[in-house]
Amino acid sequence: MNKKLNLTMLTDFYEITMAHGYFQSDMADDIAYFDMFFRRVPDGGGYAIMAGLDQLIDYLKGLKFTDEDIEYLRSKNLFCEEFLEYLHNFKFSCDVWAVPEGTPIFPHEPIVTVRGPVIQAQFIETMMLLTINHQSLIATKASRIVRAAQGRSVLEFGTRRAHGASAAIMGARAAYIAGCAGTACAIADRDYGIDALGTMAHSWVQMYPDEYTAFKKYAEIYPNNCVLLVDTYNVLKSGVPNAIKVFKEMKPARMGIRIDSGDIAYLTRKARKMLDDAGLQDCKITVSNSLDEYLIRDIIMEGACVDSFGVGERLITAKSEPVFGGVYKLAALEQDGVMVPKIKISENIEKITNPGFKNLFRFYDKDTGKMLADVMTMADEEIEEGDEYEIFDPNAVWKRKVLTNYEVRDLHVKIFDKGECVYESPDIEEIKDYCMKQMDTLWSESLRFENPQTYYVDLSQKLWEMKQGLLAEHNTRK
Amino acid sequence: MNKKLNLTMLTDFYEITMAHGYFQSDMADDIAYFDMFFRRVPDGGGYAIMAGLDQLIDYLKGLKFTDEDIEYLRSKNLFCEEFLEYLHNFKFSCDVWAVPEGTPIFPHEPIVTVRGPVIQAQFIETMMLLTINHQSLIATKASRIVRAAQGRSVLEFGTRRAHGASAAIMGARAAYIAGCAGTACAIADRDYGIDALGTMAHSWVQMYPDEYTAFKKYAEIYPNNCVLLVDTYNVLKSGVPNAIKVFKEMKPARMGIRIDSGDIAYLTRKARKMLDDAGLQDCKITVSNSLDEYLIRDIIMEGACVDSFGVGERLITAKSEPVFGGVYKLAALEQDGVMVPKIKISENIEKITNPGFKNLFRFYDKDTGKMLADVMTMADEEIEEGDEYEIFDPNAVWKRKVLTNYEVRDLHVKIFDKGECVYESPDIEEIKDYCMKQMDTLWSESLRFENPQTYYVDLSQKLWEMKQGLLAEHNTRK
Repeated sequence: MNKKLNLTMLTDFYEITMAHGYFQSDMADDIAYFDMFFRRVPDGGGYAIMAGLDQLIDYLKGLKFTDEDIEYLRSKNLFCEEFLEYLHNFKFSCDVWAVPEGTPIFPHEPIVTVRGPVIQAQFIETMMLLTINHQSLIATKASRIVRAAQGRSVLEFGTRRAHGASAAIMGARAAYIAGCAGTACAIADRDYGIDALGTMAHSWVQMYPDEYTAFKKYAEIYPNNCVLLVDTYNVLKSGVPNAIKVFKEMKPARMGIRIDSGDIAYLTRKARKMLDDAGLQDCKITVSNSLDEYLIRDIIMEGACVDSFGVGERLITAKSEPVFGGVYKLAALEQDGVMVPKIKISENIEKITNPGFKNLFRFYDKDTGKMLADVMTMADEEIEEGDEYEIFDPNAVWKRKVLTNYEVRDLHVKIFDKGECVYESPDIEEIKDYCMKQMDTLWSESLRFENPQTYYVDLSQKLWEMKQGLLAEHNTRK
Repeated sequence: MNKKLNLTMLTDFYEITMAHGYFQSDMADDIAYFDMFFRRVPDGGGYAIMAGLDQLIDYLKGLKFTDEDIEYLRSKNLFCEEFLEYLHNFKFSCDVWAVPEGTPIFPHEPIVTVRGPVIQAQFIETMMLLTINHQSLIATKASRIVRAAQGRSVLEFGTRRAHGASAAIMGARAAYIAGCAGTACAIADRDYGIDALGTMAHSWVQMYPDEYTAFKKYAEIYPNNCVLLVDTYNVLKSGVPNAIKVFKEMKPARMGIRIDSGDIAYLTRKARKMLDDAGLQDCKITVSNSLDEYLIRDIIMEGACVDSFGVGERLITAKSEPVFGGVYKLAALEQDGVMVPKIKISENIEKITNPGFKNLFRFYDKDTGKMLADVMTMADEEIEEGDEYEIFDPNAVWKRKVLTNYEVRDLHVKIFDKGECVYESPDIEEIKDYCMKQMDTLWSESLRFENPQTYYVDLSQKLWEMKQGLLAEHNTRK
């Protein structure tokens, strides 16, 4: 969607009021640093999946106030003409670093960092949050559902319950990144190459004089891949027997049945037996009916015979928790070319920000390949591979651990350099492959649906000391 | 969004597989009737609000398969060239009836009815469900939140947590229809004339050496409408005292404070007293922090002093229940020009469809103006005003009631006639006014957040008999 529309004005109005304010205060060119981060994983999960960066890049590349935008802003009678002229000539010139799409991410980590003139760095807040919150939400939910299916295919079937057009299309994209095998959404296939599939609705069956005729007609037209929806009248008494009859008569190259209602565990066991008894061991069974990770886990435990799951509304809306609470906060200013860290204080410790211009490193165990810890550092710190590195809990500094035998990876990739895009988004298959490989680096303790182990996200000694200094200063001023 | 992009291919792939199937079966021109309806109101509410029709109309007007679409479909190696040629020449030719936007709607009512060639009438399913499900979801949620505020303004602040771009823009539109006073979303203002507003983030306050300076600067720049965010450091010790100081010095024409964290009930009472004691009775208080209808109701009960509520993620995602479960089902076929009703049977009585080509009437009490009951009829039935009309519960026919002294209104408006749009969507202010007036026709029993009275949605005697006949026929065949 973003590729084709200018969404510059898809922004909270206060970004514009503030921009005008900075302009009026002669602060337009003051350099500020902002971080995007989130505070908790939806559904109480152990990790989230980064997604939506490609759309953010499209947005930033396309940033431009049109004459129509300027005219609209002028009509608000709030902004001076010099500011409108400034917007008219607006050219994005920030530096942007981000964690690549498909990476497991954790609370409090700077997943996007922006440095640039405060008007610009502030202005892009809304669309950054919108696109990364949305796609990371869906990718994170999809990752849970895909894991629940234990290797069986998960198909994204939610278009009709998505929150509008971009929710459907970008949701299909995010779900695919996190491991879904395909989508029902045709435009997501056309535009992103996500394999789209789909066969028939109940109305197809109703359009013919009887179910057998409807199935037979379908098998004639689609002899290479014939999936029949068997629950229009009665799954076991009518749907499966008619499907077996048609499969035996027509011998399609690939065949399957889909069940969209009723007790999936019971019906699929019975249907599997009927198909096997008829010699149709090759016939696949797809199910779809208000599924999510919990239901899929449970019906597999009950012995359901399912080859693939079509997951609709509970995936495309992340129904159990439909909000990914990413925020975008000021981290520092530059004064006379020197970075001055800024902190947002809160009564709630979880809401206190990590100040300064930062970097983000991930340690992996060299033998197992598993993730050991993430460490935020000041941007000018380096972590060398192979040395010993001591991490500590920033909220309980006596909890310490020495990492050895590790590889370390800088998770921040430069995306824009002074407004020029210096990053080429991988294609969606590469992102998906990368995501699957990164998932393998998570310990199983992080994968539990409920009460997973909290992964270490620590601060370097230098960053921790700087933060403590700011907190102490704040308390003194009070 | 839909106005500018061709979303013809935003469809479930099975719509295309079925279309090709009907084409191959020489059924392309068979006339079918479909209804869109939903089965339950989200959050267990007593009514929903119809929204999204304007975007459906845009979609239907713009239906066209481009060369790129055809090329994509050809690449799937599933469809014959004659069918691709058919799609290339596709011209929408259906009749469409719908309930106007802003109307309270109830489960099982045909809120959209389509009559036309089965390929077409089937094909539009996905986008119809997508747009009407989404906007009706948000309008319904917004209606609850607006009622909870008891006349105080509710502002839609959710863009950053919306599920992508169209969720933000169309969500702002739907929220406005249902009674929100404005939005933070600038593009929704530019494109739909929904008043957008917004002042400052915490970062504004942090950008200046101290809070007082940040406030003062803002008041200088925006002397006509100066709303200050007072919770960056400490609401009562710092934010409100600094705001009072600046208001007294600068005397802005309109002034307000916004509180975005902490205990709203406590803080607003204290802040109100401080403002009043300073002679600033005119200063308004806005609050915003993960609000919804329940929290708003509770903090008003606690005596919070709030003039307006900014409602974000819980409105724009309908967080408590983010799915509006509208479905689209075959209701009838035409054979030799005669309408043949079709019914979808289910073990679950709630899932059995209402067959046939239908109309929908609403009865209002002439004295009170309140809604009495809705009745679905066969399309060829008329209900005359002023006569006695006996309604009955379709699932318990001994429950009967004679309506008298009523006005009756046909809720189905013709939208497309043989593919031509014959309906002009009212502008958004008219839709909102209409919605507010219709809300006044609901009995208070329908307005409860929990366990509202179930509104009567009945069938005419003729429709009921026809349905019973089909059910009996189905049982005989079994």
